[in-house]
Amino acid sequence: MINPERVLGDLKYLRTIGGFKTGVHRPTLSKEDIFVRQWLVEQMREAGLDAAIDGIGNILARTDVAGRIMLAGSHIETQNHAGWLDGALGVIYALETARAVREDRSLHGVGVDVAVFCDEEGHFGSFLGSRSFIGVVDEAEIDRAKHVSIGTPLREALAAAGYAGRPRFVIDPSRYVGFFEAHIEQGAVLETSGNRIGVVSGIVGFWQYRIMAEGEQNHAGTTPMELRRDAGLALVRLLNAVDVRFPALAAPRTVWTTGKISLDPGARSIIPGRAEALFQFRDTDVAVLERLENALHELVKEANAAGPCALSVMRVSASEPARMDERFTKVLAKVAQQEVPGRFIHMPSGAAHDAQFIAQKLPTAMMFVPSIKGISHHWTEDTSEEDIVLGAKIFANSIVLALKARRP
Amino acid sequence: MINPERVLGDLKYLRTIGGFKTGVHRPTLSKEDIFVRQWLVEQMREAGLDAAIDGIGNILARTDVAGRIMLAGSHIETQNHAGWLDGALGVIYALETARAVREDRSLHGVGVDVAVFCDEEGHFGSFLGSRSFIGVVDEAEIDRAKHVSIGTPLREALAAAGYAGRPRFVIDPSRYVGFFEAHIEQGAVLETSGNRIGVVSGIVGFWQYRIMAEGEQNHAGTTPMELRRDAGLALVRLLNAVDVRFPALAAPRTVWTTGKISLDPGARSIIPGRAEALFQFRDTDVAVLERLENALHELVKEANAAGPCALSVMRVSASEPARMDERFTKVLAKVAQQEVPGRFIHMPSGAAHDAQFIAQKLPTAMMFVPSIKGISHHWTEDTSEEDIVLGAKIFANSIVLALKARRP
Repeated sequence: MINPERVLGDLKYLRTIGGFKTGVHRPTLSKEDIFVRQWLVEQMREAGLDAAIDGIGNILARTDVAGRIMLAGSHIETQNHAGWLDGALGVIYALETARAVREDRSLHGVGVDVAVFCDEEGHFGSFLGSRSFIGVVDEAEIDRAKHVSIGTPLREALAAAGYAGRPRFVIDPSRYVGFFEAHIEQGAVLETSGNRIGVVSGIVGFWQYRIMAEGEQNHAGTTPMELRRDAGLALVRLLNAVDVRFPALAAPRTVWTTGKISLDPGARSIIPGRAEALFQFRDTDVAVLERLENALHELVKEANAAGPCALSVMRVSASEPARMDERFTKVLAKVAQQEVPGRFIHMPSGAAHDAQFIAQKLPTAMMFVPSIKGISHHWTEDTSEEDIVLGAKIFANSIVLALKARRP
Repeated sequence: MINPERVLGDLKYLRTIGGFKTGVHRPTLSKEDIFVRQWLVEQMREAGLDAAIDGIGNILARTDVAGRIMLAGSHIETQNHAGWLDGALGVIYALETARAVREDRSLHGVGVDVAVFCDEEGHFGSFLGSRSFIGVVDEAEIDRAKHVSIGTPLREALAAAGYAGRPRFVIDPSRYVGFFEAHIEQGAVLETSGNRIGVVSGIVGFWQYRIMAEGEQNHAGTTPMELRRDAGLALVRLLNAVDVRFPALAAPRTVWTTGKISLDPGARSIIPGRAEALFQFRDTDVAVLERLENALHELVKEANAAGPCALSVMRVSASEPARMDERFTKVLAKVAQQEVPGRFIHMPSGAAHDAQFIAQKLPTAMMFVPSIKGISHHWTEDTSEEDIVLGAKIFANSIVLALKARRP
């Protein structure tokens, strides 16, 4: 039903707008990003959809079908110097599904709306587009938002794009059967396990912490071991204790990571007086997240009881895990089983996606295609054309099957 | 025999040249440093010594006594925004000893030369003054030397000071009975233990390493624990293993320190692909240093056998420990015991000093006075006037006793 050449053609065209080596550099509201948004609107209109860009850069393309409607989409901007498919794949899958559904004369009373959520990649904020679409971004948040590295106010960028002053789209849940998003896996689970489709079971909750150690800065030559309060060593001991204790408390797919460690002052011959780590863990189950948080606090307490440094832990953020709709998940699995028998798996999404916010308003599904070598957020990110086309087919067919299914 | 007012007066005067808060900012060959060197030469000449500044900024002041001569001294420049006594104390003790010995009509056939070694604090290089004095700095090293932060070539700074083209002093070991240096402790051992004098048993050897871990950079959400090669975690485990294994291998006064840890790329949600630590240990016994180095290599080997990352360790530098002369050490202990019975200790110097280079040519001794709260290399560094005067007395009396002593 879908047109493979059209899918690959659109993706390859998008790859040329902001092209960087074999990837793409197209940050939110850059010249290239604004150009691409307008280009998408034109493709949507050509497909017979009523498309527009709103006051925060979101695109919504509506079908005129009166009947059961599915919302589908993703984001179109990229990380800096990143891959060609992250975001774009899900947008073009949604657009192609909308086109194919309209073209299929055998389908009656079903349609697809396409949404393109602005700034999923967080150049200006945290999921501003999808959060705006579910109605949780107020004007004050937009007033405050600035480009994280350049500092340009979001208001200024929106004005330069010509979007300022436009109303913002807000979801009408009564219009939709649900929401489907496709995305590259951004990991190596599919490739490593020899599978070609990932049916997302849920999107992980993602809890982040600053772990701080306070000791006493001193000369590394003249301070005997027994007089030291080495904040760096205290942090190393704690992170090692986390490594020892977490496996028994974690679920099979839980992940935890220390992304950054800094010792202050961080000089060769000075005992660090302060040390800090950025630490996080992710799971689809809140009970697991809470268990790990409790364990982290216990380990800090034990470390402080042992001394000689003062450790503390501060939660920086905590997102709720998002459940995927069970009926949709079954539909994706059924279609995948038809196309590639035995070569799909159910898996959590370890990365955050717009779908986790839309899931607060609609039954939601997500589907992954393999990332070659698991590479993501890098210009070498890639997926084979065969997998891209297979993914488009399973995505579109699943949406149609879900639209045709009677509610239980 | 020494004149306490003269000692305190000179130190308080020096404190005003480059004064910063209650400390001093007088980097090597700064305007203030050059002024102070000339001032010292004048004080030395007033004391009847034949004093001059050489082609690398070293000052040597020679007595005209024909007899047993002791060399004494330290350095005069400071770290940036650092303390008033680090270096200056040892210089003024030496100058005062030379003066007092000349003034004492009861002393015959003994004298003291005073040396002020340039750039002990390493603004341009590594112990350039004392190493030049023992003949191990060639012209090419001076050609290459640049200010570590500003980049000014040492040649330029020497020319601006008026020292360029002068010959450099080289030690004549046959002239001297030995070398004495006094210094602030730069640690809290004396204060903590309630002692007032540290008789230095040896200057530690100081071995430095880069420990590197190589893993695979990946997304912290989408990469399952079992597929990870987390370089940061590998480094944390190794540093923790060092913390567990080193105590049993170390001598009572061995110290080891991780001064810096960096994870690459060091971002919240990215599994570090590379990690690095700056690590060092110090001891007065080469056998201990070798044992620790072997243990470090063993731990790296064990970590590599366990996987999944590749660890490696590179020795960055290794200085030899310097022994202090036993007869001199006994003299210092004897004089200290007379002045403050039971309130002195034998201790290694954990910091490097000019004395460790002079020790390659002469029997050498070092003596410490307490640092309040152990603070060093900071403008709050301080020592009580009572301790300063006591130290000057013990230093001078020890030199006289050592000069008078018959060789065994």
